[in-house]
Amino acid sequence: MSQRKHAVAETCPVARSVDLVGDRWSLLIVRDAFDGTRRFGDFQRGLGVARSILAERLRRLVEEGILAVQPASDGTSYQEYVLTPRGEQLFAVVVALRQWGEQQLFQPGEARSQLLERATGQELAPMQPRGADGQVLGAWQAVVRKPTAP
Amino acid sequence: MSQRKHAVAETCPVARSVDLVGDRWSLLIVRDAFDGTRRFGDFQRGLGVARSILAERLRRLVEEGILAVQPASDGTSYQEYVLTPRGEQLFAVVVALRQWGEQQLFQPGEARSQLLERATGQELAPMQPRGADGQVLGAWQAVVRKPTAP
Repeated sequence: MSQRKHAVAETCPVARSVDLVGDRWSLLIVRDAFDGTRRFGDFQRGLGVARSILAERLRRLVEEGILAVQPASDGTSYQEYVLTPRGEQLFAVVVALRQWGEQQLFQPGEARSQLLERATGQELAPMQPRGADGQVLGAWQAVVRKPTAP
Repeated sequence: MSQRKHAVAETCPVARSVDLVGDRWSLLIVRDAFDGTRRFGDFQRGLGVARSILAERLRRLVEEGILAVQPASDGTSYQEYVLTPRGEQLFAVVVALRQWGEQQLFQPGEARSQLLERATGQELAPMQPRGADGQVLGAWQAVVRKPTAP
């Protein structure tokens, strides 16, 4: 797992996250990994991305500890890319992107994929930022505090 | 607000979102807008981004209805960029990226910025995907259903 030092001691967690996964292909690779895609050729066909770009993004996601490489589950000689525990924690990011798209970028009734709870077949609840007491918070009810200089 | 047709009738909400905000600069511009940044020069100094790239990203965020341009609040001739209601709904995306970074990309005790509830000064609760009944769901308890062909 990467022990890379972050540029200029970046103290904003949003910026550190965006440095690792804040690009179109990395986010879509992670989305497809959650949907069960594991092999280079399947990522490539699903995304329609150039092989060189896909190889570079997969290498970086492995280097950062978001994906891990393992032998194929069916005993063939393929390599498989699977989410690590760190990668699985990106589920909330993918769901947040999905729900924003559902709410803002589709017309009512327009065909779209759905994310359903396996056990019930129901769509997930809207994910909303909440305070420590569980109350939903709008953006203007929160404020960023920068770290004090050492 | 954009009525742009999405490429190949993209039916995945994650992909539509990523098409609009899935790049490093757009995500960091939106983050800074939540922190109160409004003017071109302030975005530019805060992000250290080239003016031409910043201008292109701001133009695109306005075109997509995420930011709106308005006259300066202090009566000067500056333009200000403010989040629209559509843009404000990205708060959950920014918080999800932040919390993943906090959990995964900082050592315990390492200096970082914090997102606090204004009213209480407490950090926000961890945002987690939940089913319709409010139970926290892991990634493998959810499944994507693609739309049926028309």
